[in-house]
This record gives sequence, structure tokens and C-alpha cells, in this order.
Amino acid sequence: MKKYSILILVFISLTINFSIAQEEQPAILDDFKPSAINQPGKEFPQVNSEGRVRAQISAPEATSVKLDIGGVKYDLVKDEAGIWTGESAPQDVGFHYYQLNIDGASVPDPGALLYFGACRWGSGIEIPSDDQDIFAVKDVPHGHVHEILFPSESTQKSRRAFVYTPPGYETETSKQYPVLYLQHGYCENETSWFRQGHANLIMDNLIAEGKAKPFIIVMTYGMTNEIEFGGLRNFDITPFQTVLADELIPYVDSHFRTLANQENRAMAGLSMGGFETRLITLNKPDLFSHYGLFSGGMYKPEEIADHDQLKLIFISCGSKERPDGVKNAVNELQNQGFNAVSYISEGTAHEFHTWRRSLHQFAQLLFK
Amino acid sequence: MKKYSILILVFISLTINFSIAQEEQPAILDDFKPSAINQPGKEFPQVNSEGRVRAQISAPEATSVKLDIGGVKYDLVKDEAGIWTGESAPQDVGFHYYQLNIDGASVPDPGALLYFGACRWGSGIEIPSDDQDIFAVKDVPHGHVHEILFPSESTQKSRRAFVYTPPGYETETSKQYPVLYLQHGYCENETSWFRQGHANLIMDNLIAEGKAKPFIIVMTYGMTNEIEFGGLRNFDITPFQTVLADELIPYVDSHFRTLANQENRAMAGLSMGGFETRLITLNKPDLFSHYGLFSGGMYKPEEIADHDQLKLIFISCGSKERPDGVKNAVNELQNQGFNAVSYISEGTAHEFHTWRRSLHQFAQLLFK
Repeated sequence: MKKYSILILVFISLTINFSIAQEEQPAILDDFKPSAINQPGKEFPQVNSEGRVRAQISAPEATSVKLDIGGVKYDLVKDEAGIWTGESAPQDVGFHYYQLNIDGASVPDPGALLYFGACRWGSGIEIPSDDQDIFAVKDVPHGHVHEILFPSESTQKSRRAFVYTPPGYETETSKQYPVLYLQHGYCENETSWFRQGHANLIMDNLIAEGKAKPFIIVMTYGMTNEIEFGGLRNFDITPFQTVLADELIPYVDSHFRTLANQENRAMAGLSMGGFETRLITLNKPDLFSHYGLFSGGMYKPEEIADHDQLKLIFISCGSKERPDGVKNAVNELQNQGFNAVSYISEGTAHEFHTWRRSLHQFAQLLFK
Repeated sequence: MKKYSILILVFISLTINFSIAQEEQPAILDDFKPSAINQPGKEFPQVNSEGRVRAQISAPEATSVKLDIGGVKYDLVKDEAGIWTGESAPQDVGFHYYQLNIDGASVPDPGALLYFGACRWGSGIEIPSDDQDIFAVKDVPHGHVHEILFPSESTQKSRRAFVYTPPGYETETSKQYPVLYLQHGYCENETSWFRQGHANLIMDNLIAEGKAKPFIIVMTYGMTNEIEFGGLRNFDITPFQTVLADELIPYVDSHFRTLANQENRAMAGLSMGGFETRLITLNKPDLFSHYGLFSGGMYKPEEIADHDQLKLIFISCGSKERPDGVKNAVNELQNQGFNAVSYISEGTAHEFHTWRRSLHQFAQLLFK
């Protein structure tokens, strides 16, 4: 009997150890595929169906290589050929910024396409989502994204903006269009909304489905206080408001076939861009009639001076942010008679998939 | 006397040693400034007045960091804080691709802007030149660069192109414009001509100075045989010719206000893009009237079927390539009665500064 007891104890002990080991190092599903936004011909980085990222890089003489994503650094492991490979924990669906760390140097992954975020051009990865179809390149008419340089007296330079014109703009040459001014977040830039956000493709698809009215989108750089990347506490909206209201809008209205009035002009932004949208729309009620804040603050009813000119307030965020705050703010606005709409992006945080979905919702409500 | 002799010998000896040391490790002029194409707020890479590149990166745990530029790897040296710094030999004026190598891993420099070349997005550096003014952002009217997606039945996808429309295109809405189709080189892409080439800024400045007729420029991806990056020996022009002639040109002519005829259509390209230009212009004499080959081959008089329809042949290269070949080919064409022009870019090789200057010359001759 004693022998059996010992055997059973050993078995139990092994089982417990095995369970603990599994908890610490869960089996990783081996269905990795190259990320949809890799550089041409590159096999890595890859993503599996759990949303894990597998990075790989050749660094034969390195002693430590890490994958730095979502605020966590994951160790890669070296093989005999000097190639390092490793995986992250599962990530939320959608787009994430990340980088590699090679013996202490933080660098872009040469396998991935590059996006401006965190104040630098860095690697991006796309975790597949059920609704990624909203920004797929489909066989539908496509709008154009114009890179423009507009004169800015207030900042003494030519400033860059991107302007989306919807399909048909070039051929229906007598038609005029409403305009959405759409702002990026802190330490992003004027490329972010159409590169990682796919604003142009979201619009192409919505227009092809008859779900959105064709309109122009203008995206420019919102961090006019360029020297101070320090923080938003002492943020002064005046320099950017001047560029937008006194320089960019007149340029757009004179170079594109716009409906150049308050009724046909919207402003929206994500994160810091929402913060800017809130300040500028409140300061300049005569300029915009449709407001959108994506993960970027709230309006209080008492802040809004002119009820009649305001057509729509749209406030959104990810379910992993503060959805109750958004819903409560919108309820309060509705109770005061405003046309206010809330939207919560399920399963996402303060990242671009939340904002792609927000634009997809917001665009369907605009100028109607 | 003996004492003096010894002193003189010591002096001579020191002088010789000093001279040798100087030859082996020439003094580097310490007038380094951040490259004009650094990422926002980045101090490195830097360039000095000799055209040397100084790279710097923090990599505390690395054992070897190199600057890889112009086919040479230069060792960087580590300081106590783990920051590596080092310089290259002097580089030619203009734009160069480069990368860093950290313990065997080849990666982009996080300090520099990124450009598509060598089949990847990699770091770029700009060595100042006497004529960099030709692509400076000036206080002149600026054209727009449209990113377009055009349908391509032959390749079963939406393909990307960039279209430069000159200043005035948006406001002078009854005017029609000639078009230049402008191709990138091997392992570059449709962004190369306006990002590293600054084709749009070269045109804005020429037009403002009254030196070029305003025309449209179309830039698309020329490596239609996408799977085979192997070489040009078995290159088949048919797939790209089909995209260009049967899909892109009709799209451009139906979406932009072009003068849609042979007389007002030019084609040019750099390196492999010149190779493509030569084949397509010879195959399709009814499409183009002005031909440009920048570091990309020659035409022989006997190849050209229709004399009367051809308005201009422009052939160029850098003085560090084969300038005599270019001059001889152009002489031969001139002797046969062709309107042929040669251009040699002084002090440059098979790189983008040669091609910026070539475009600057070619554009002044077009459609006149």
C-alpha cells in the first residue's frame, strides 16, 4: 500500500506541476500568418488567431532582443543561425504601434510598414478584426487623397495637409461638397488618419454602399506648438485655431469645390484631436455644425452657446476606456434637447481601431 | 652640436608620425548639423561640410554598432552611457539610403525619415548641395500630389499611383494639361519620385520662375512582375505596359483635365524606369512624343520607327556613371536629325540627386 501511496503522490505532484507550468506558459496556437501591413515580401512580423504577435529578426551577435508592444517587452529567443523569434501576449483587435529592442537599442522592425505615432515613424501591426471589411480595398470607385501645401502666415511656412475628395469629384465637376476637418491624436500627424486610420477607404466603402453622403475630409497637423511636446496642461489652442480657421479653411474653400458654410462643415478628432475639436467648435460656433469627439473629451450642455446652429454631437470611445462617461455625457446633452449620439467600440481601448469604427459611425450621420 | 642633431631628428620623427597619423585618420571637420530629413526633433544623423555622416544611437548592451552607407560599414564607438557615435567617409551631394547594423541586425536608424529603396522602407540622408534650392519648399503656389487607386483588370486589383497637378489646376477649371508619366528605379516604388526626388517641389519652383510649362506628372509602381525581384535579364515589359497603356492612361485621361493625345504626353524614368520607358516608347510610338532616360539606357537611331511624331529625346546620367556613353548616343541621334539632348550631373553617381537634376533639366524642355 505504501508503494501505491507514493506513486499516487508523485502522480498528483506531477499533475500539479504540469498545471502550473501550463498557466505560466500557455500553449500558443501555431496559426501565425504575416501581418497584413508588412513590408513587401516580408514574412515577419506575424499574427495568430489569438492576436499574439510573433516577431523575428536576424541579430547573430546580439545578447538580448525584445518585442516592445502595448507597454510590455517580450523576450525573443535566438536559434543557432542567430535568428531571434518570440511572441507577445494576445493583443486587442486593430492597429498597434510597436518596436524592437536590440541590446538596448529601440529601433523599428525592418519587416513592418512604418506609421507616425508616439512622435516618431515606427512599426505598425494589424490584428485581424471581425469588422476589418470596413476599410478593405474593394473593387469600388475610389476617392483621391491630395497632399497639399498651404501658405500659413501665422507660422511663417507652407504647411502640409491631406484632402480626401470622394469618388466622382473629378468627373462631376459642377458638384459642391460638405467638408469634415478631422484631427489626429497627440504625437501623431497629418498622415495618421488615412494611413493607420484608412479614413479614405472607410469613406469609399460607405459611399459605395450608399450609407454616407459624399464629402471632403481635410487632415492637417494639429500640434502647432511644435517645440513643446511636453504635455497638454498648458496647451494653448490659439495657434492651431488660427491655422485652421484663418488659413486652412480659406485655402480649402478656394481650391476645392466645397459648400463653404457652417451648415456643411464638420470637425472631429481623436484623443488630443478631440480636445482641439471641442475647444475650436466652442470658440467658433459659426464655423462648424457637426462635432465629433473620439476618445477625446465631452461637451457639457451649458458650454454650448448657440443651439440652433448645431446639428450633431457625436461622442465615442472604446469599451476599454470610459464608456459610462461617454454615455452619461450624451444622455445629458439629449436631455437638454441636443441631437447627440454616443458610440462604444466593443473590445478596444485608446487605439486606432476605436477611431476607425468611430469615423465609420460618425460619417453615416453627417450632413443629413 | 650632437644635442641639436638629436632634437632635430626627434622633431622630424614626430612630424612624420603626425603626417602618417593624419593620413590614416584624417581630421574630421567638426561642423556637423542634423540632416535636413531627420525625424521631428531628432539631432542625429548629422552631416558636416565634407559630406561625412555622423550616426548616433543608444545601445548600452551592444558589442558592435555600424553605420552602413554607400556599400561600406563604418564602426561606431561606445561612450560610458552606452551611446554609440561614428562617422562615414565623405559622401556625394544629394540623397542616400543607409541603415544601422546593431550586433548583426540591419535596421532603420530611428533618427531619420524613411524612404522606399532597395525594396524596403529604410533610412535616408541628405548631403547638402549647391543646387538644393531647386527642390526647396518656397513661398510660391504649390501643386497637389493626389494619391489615387485605379482599377487594373490585368492584375486583378486596385493599383496605386500619385498624380501631381500643377498650381492653378484647381482654380483654372477649364484648362487642360499635358502629362508626363515618370517611373522610379529598381526596388523603389511610386512614392520615390516625389519623396526622395521632390518632383512636385522641382515643378512648383520651375513653374513659379516661368521656366517650365505647367503639366501633370503621373507616378506609379513599375515592378508589375512583383514576385520576381531577381533581376532584369528576363524582364518582360508586357505586364507593366498593359497596366500603363490600357489602364492607367485611360484612368488619368478620364479623371484629370489632360490634353489626351500623343503630342502632349511624355514618358521618362530613372534606371530601371528608363529601361521601361525605352521599351514602352518604342513599342507604343502613338502614345508618347517626349522621351527621357535618366541613368537608364540609350536609344539607337535605327530603333525609332516614326521620326515625325517624336518631339524630344533626353538622355542623362551622373558624371560618375558613363557620361561619354550618354554624349555619344545623343550625338548619334542628333546626327540622324533627332531633337536629342544630353545632360550630365556633375559630381554625382547612380543616385537620386542625378535624377532630381535630370528632371529639373528635362521639365524645362517639355511640351514647348
